[in-house]
Amino acid sequence: MKETADFPDDWSEQPMDPTPDPEPTPAGWLSPGDIAGARAQLPIVYVDAVPVRVDDSGDVVSVGLLLRVNAEGQMTRALVSGRVMYHERIRDALLRHIEKDLGPVALPLIPSSPQPFTVAEYFPTPGITSYHDPRQHAVSLAYVVPVTGDCEPQQHALDLAWLTPEQACDDAVQVEMHGGQGALLRQAMAHVGRLT
Amino acid sequence: MKETADFPDDWSEQPMDPTPDPEPTPAGWLSPGDIAGARAQLPIVYVDAVPVRVDDSGDVVSVGLLLRVNAEGQMTRALVSGRVMYHERIRDALLRHIEKDLGPVALPLIPSSPQPFTVAEYFPTPGITSYHDPRQHAVSLAYVVPVTGDCEPQQHALDLAWLTPEQACDDAVQVEMHGGQGALLRQAMAHVGRLT
Amino acid sequence: MKETADFPDDWSEQPMDPTPDPEPTPAGWLSPGDIAGARAQLPIVYVDAVPVRVDDSGDVVSVGLLLRVNAEGQMTRALVSGRVMYHERIRDALLRHIEKDLGPVALPLIPSSPQPFTVAEYFPTPGITSYHDPRQHAVSLAYVVPVTGDCEPQQHALDLAWLTPEQACDDAVQVEMHGGQGALLRQAMAHVGRLT
Amino acid sequence: MKETADFPDDWSEQPMDPTPDPEPTPAGWLSPGDIAGARAQLPIVYVDAVPVRVDDSGDVVSVGLLLRVNAEGQMTRALVSGRVMYHERIRDALLRHIEKDLGPVALPLIPSSPQPFTVAEYFPTPGITSYHDPRQHAVSLAYVVPVTGDCEPQQHALDLAWLTPEQACDDAVQVEMHGGQGALLRQAMAHVGRLT
Repeated sequence: MKETADFPDDWSEQPMDPTPDPEPTPAGWLSPGDIAGARAQLPIVYVDAVPVRVDDSGDVVSVGLLLRVNAEGQMTRALVSGRVMYHERIRDALLRHIEKDLGPVALPLIPSSPQPFTVAEYFPTPGITSYHDPRQHAVSLAYVVPVTGDCEPQQHALDLAWLTPEQACDDAVQVEMHGGQGALLRQAMAHVGRLT
Repeated sequence: MKETADFPDDWSEQPMDPTPDPEPTPAGWLSPGDIAGARAQLPIVYVDAVPVRVDDSGDVVSVGLLLRVNAEGQMTRALVSGRVMYHERIRDALLRHIEKDLGPVALPLIPSSPQPFTVAEYFPTPGITSYHDPRQHAVSLAYVVPVTGDCEPQQHALDLAWLTPEQACDDAVQVEMHGGQGALLRQAMAHVGRLT
Repeated sequence: MKETADFPDDWSEQPMDPTPDPEPTPAGWLSPGDIAGARAQLPIVYVDAVPVRVDDSGDVVSVGLLLRVNAEGQMTRALVSGRVMYHERIRDALLRHIEKDLGPVALPLIPSSPQPFTVAEYFPTPGITSYHDPRQHAVSLAYVVPVTGDCEPQQHALDLAWLTPEQACDDAVQVEMHGGQGALLRQAMAHVGRLT
Repeated sequence: MKETADFPDDWSEQPMDPTPDPEPTPAGWLSPGDIAGARAQLPIVYVDAVPVRVDDSGDVVSVGLLLRVNAEGQMTRALVSGRVMYHERIRDALLRHIEKDLGPVALPLIPSSPQPFTVAEYFPTPGITSYHDPRQHAVSLAYVVPVTGDCEPQQHALDLAWLTPEQACDDAVQVEMHGGQGALLRQAMAHVGRLT
């Protein structure tokens, strides 16, 4: 959806992203303050994508994780994640966020079915589900997305690391993922038959 | 989630419901006008439930459809459908809407997995997906939910009719469903292996 | 799995295929007669693949159907379908059957997850499920598989036709599909959100 | 399916079951030797069921595991698992195996959809998939099945233990599960959003 490029996107697209960019608000849109109010009173629609490389039989060979430094100065690993905008289809939001985080020639194979492998419910209160986002209640549709092109970390990411499913599920990696994304990654590996 | 009963619910819970009830707004909440503004700028999280009766082998025997009269005076058939509230889990929203529409002793068997059989994207603009809601952009997680108790139509519904999967997919019934819910019902029947 | 090329495959791979090719039986294998006996007493593992073309957002643009003439001289349309062999993974069976029916450069994108969109239970007795195969009880795992290369009908197929989802679900096409494959195709379209 | 009770069932129903019961072979059936031959040359259709207790919202509260002593005298924990018979529906096989292992009043809620949460491919050769069965190549459709009645271990099981999802995923329990059933159990918990 080309028009989404012009949508105001005053929220961080990334649950864990420490540096939301302010953007101007077009006439007729809610102000950032109003949006912040809505955000405190409505669940927000998100997508989570687990970027993978697959072999000719579709078997997952590796998983792509973004490396970032968060507001506390910690190194963190993250999935591709972001908000679905008004009048944007889920599949277009997936494509947009993958291109935003992995670059314009990542060539993702967006799933033909809208059925996600799970729904991650990020609550502002920890402990209600496996997922937590202190800023909001996000309902995130999660998909495994094979990418076939060249991927380059964009924006605030320092690196994009490709790990085997075994490495990605390892405690050393899991501890660097926040808000439950480690659990979500392991669910994704369970879904593709590669949980170890 | 008991606390959801006290949440403001100034929007119609039902995409096609002609008669949203105004409710008072607690201090600190967005006013109805502000919510209407958010609704025009954010996709809203919904659930759709297809209530079914099953036999001992889990095979679907019948499908429950609500009969209502809409604002134009037409008889319409509808699924159980409604908004997910702030800080409410999907499974609690499903339970709440089923009890709201089918009564307190419907005894639904809420799915143990959050994976929906599909995601229905209701757009305010017709033709972008199979789903349409003139009032909003709703992203609805859809589930088939067996009910085991006594079901009574509540609120504005005139009746709750139990149809066989074949009857439910029939053109005569499909034409009475609006906003794409007929297509959603047929997708549900496809999912349970009963599309005809 | 390269070794599967040498496996005896004395049964028709295709539930509806009228012309099974006899093949020599390696030493130590059950004879065709014994296999026929097993086939009359065991459910057989199958895969069904719905070949599709998708756009950049993963949305299904068209569906590929094989055109064949059956033993009664009727024109029939069929999905890619065939048996899973001993010691063969589901994903390798999918790849093998797609290459067998659509040619070696069809370049299918085999799903990363083994979760099928449905399981089609072909019974030798009609009416127990939506699926029927007079020759056997086949339990078929069904997948939607995007293909990205050049597809050419192979073997006994006269043609490979690419239809829109709407055309594929049309009664005129459905009537040319046998054994319940028309219903399976519509289930596939329901799964990708394109049932009409 | 009542008639399945009379089917010959000369194979162990349970991948890990150390004590298959010999049964007489009706006239016209393959002999045990012939079946053993088929079993060495065909993948066999299985079902795996993860029995769970759920709360009113469908959230999994506990998981039922069977405790058995295997041929080597080890204590093992197992899921409900067994073969699908000729002319038996998946849903009837699920019901039969759950009643066989958990007793006649377990009152399982068989899923309305045939879509499994995964397909476990048990290979006679270890390491090809996460699953291993030295006796055969089994293709097993796996389902999470809530049970609502009284469950009693049957046959060779010493006990039926109800564990929390956290306990069931713990290494101490996982090490007592064989053939990959520990991984399958964790996949099931991932599917219901309870992997830890």
